[in-house]
Amino acid sequence: MKLVSYLVSGRPSFGLYTDHGIVDLGQKLGDKYQDLKSLLSDKDGLANAKNFLDSPSDIDEQAITYLPVIPNPNKILCVGMNYAEKRAEFNETSSAPTLFVRFPDSQTGHKTNIIKPTISDELDYEGELAIIIGKEAFRIKSEEALSYIAGYSCYMDGSIRDWQYTWYTAGKNWPNTGAFGPCLTTTDEIPDPKALSIATYLNGKEMQHDSIKNLVHTVPDLISYISTFTKLSPGDVILTGSPGGVGKKRNPPIFMHDGDTIEVEITNIGRLTNFIVEEKR
Amino acid sequence: MKLVSYLVSGRPSFGLYTDHGIVDLGQKLGDKYQDLKSLLSDKDGLANAKNFLDSPSDIDEQAITYLPVIPNPNKILCVGMNYAEKRAEFNETSSAPTLFVRFPDSQTGHKTNIIKPTISDELDYEGELAIIIGKEAFRIKSEEALSYIAGYSCYMDGSIRDWQYTWYTAGKNWPNTGAFGPCLTTTDEIPDPKALSIATYLNGKEMQHDSIKNLVHTVPDLISYISTFTKLSPGDVILTGSPGGVGKKRNPPIFMHDGDTIEVEITNIGRLTNFIVEEKR
Repeated sequence: MKLVSYLVSGRPSFGLYTDHGIVDLGQKLGDKYQDLKSLLSDKDGLANAKNFLDSPSDIDEQAITYLPVIPNPNKILCVGMNYAEKRAEFNETSSAPTLFVRFPDSQTGHKTNIIKPTISDELDYEGELAIIIGKEAFRIKSEEALSYIAGYSCYMDGSIRDWQYTWYTAGKNWPNTGAFGPCLTTTDEIPDPKALSIATYLNGKEMQHDSIKNLVHTVPDLISYISTFTKLSPGDVILTGSPGGVGKKRNPPIFMHDGDTIEVEITNIGRLTNFIVEEKR
Repeated sequence: MKLVSYLVSGRPSFGLYTDHGIVDLGQKLGDKYQDLKSLLSDKDGLANAKNFLDSPSDIDEQAITYLPVIPNPNKILCVGMNYAEKRAEFNETSSAPTLFVRFPDSQTGHKTNIIKPTISDELDYEGELAIIIGKEAFRIKSEEALSYIAGYSCYMDGSIRDWQYTWYTAGKNWPNTGAFGPCLTTTDEIPDPKALSIATYLNGKEMQHDSIKNLVHTVPDLISYISTFTKLSPGDVILTGSPGGVGKKRNPPIFMHDGDTIEVEITNIGRLTNFIVEEKR
């Protein structure tokens, strides 16, 4: 099952993404759930959504503006340096997961614009697997961690490199730099995230490519580590880190500019597409 | 004017802290403002509060349980390494402000318990000046920045040192480690924060002491820097960093344990008092 968040006729809603179009759950379940986070917060939410899988579509994909899959997570925790190649590029030696935080208002949806700030020419790409939490998780063992996940999505963790070298907060929170989508694919379709592969394309050319099985800190280990110090709730997001091949560490470096198209594709989820637009002065 | 958030008879409220007791604004203005953040979000909120400064008190201080001054900020941005002595202790060389993020659920109020996790024996103190934002701020110049502040408070940025060496997120987000209070003192009583001095006391003994005029990145410069990459809103909190003298860097190190009392005092604000309690196994 694939779940999406979007605007339709200017109104925020959420629904099922199916072969035959969008089934608008906001219209069918809106009295119960105001958004996708609220649906995930109810233990029967996903089952209630599944009942509509065979319903006729309500909206054409062309009629929606995608929102971030979860527009309003309580927490977005981002793991840095979690692939061997990336760690080598950045000379990372920490044995514990390195973590920074994104604020929800830095996000944007599938097929929308990523804004390149005028102040910087170092807007870089980082394709990542996003975990979306499905139930409250505190002090969870790795062996049990997968059962706390609602599903997975693609994330473009857009980075302003010349502002990130101070514990990352400043480089990772610019408006419209974190693209999240196109959809949440539920765990019944992805029983083991290690089977997934990820690739990033800049203007159609492959820039990053790796397998989720190569994560230094695995998906269950990340949930266990993070839930040791902070409680996770439905709709919370963990970004699992980006493969090697980022623009900053190429020779010469490659950064993103007005007119570029950046895409992140993950098996069983889909391809997240965004367009780089220079900030209006 | 001093504003406080608290529980009274189990119900969350907010009010004025006066010489003659608490004036319960939740009771008087609750139809307009559900909490202190909501009051700050209205341009007339502080003026409406001020009208009750001479009202008789509604509650004795003994009858309330303090909440964090702002229990639910949208953003808590924490500045690290912002006093010369602290920078020397941690060998910090970055010229830009170093920033990490606290989640609101890591906070606690004045005269409540700070929880020492069982898993660590390195719970350390960091007394800090907290800035509370009073109106939306994006791309603000330093010269204008003070006018975006609603007021100031004390903050005990409790740190789990053996978990912090990975960009700080993991060491700074444990439940009940960020104490925030006792009150927000409005800017009419603190026209220039450089005049303030700060001290931290462990079991009554002074452990940290400095002047806010010694901040490496000043209060206006921090608002200007942060608002370059992220929008600030009423109720958002900026922690301005801690003076030298933290426990981790003493010889031998001093950490906090069950039964300790930790206090942060700032001129014109007051003294934030908290009790260290070992987490229940």
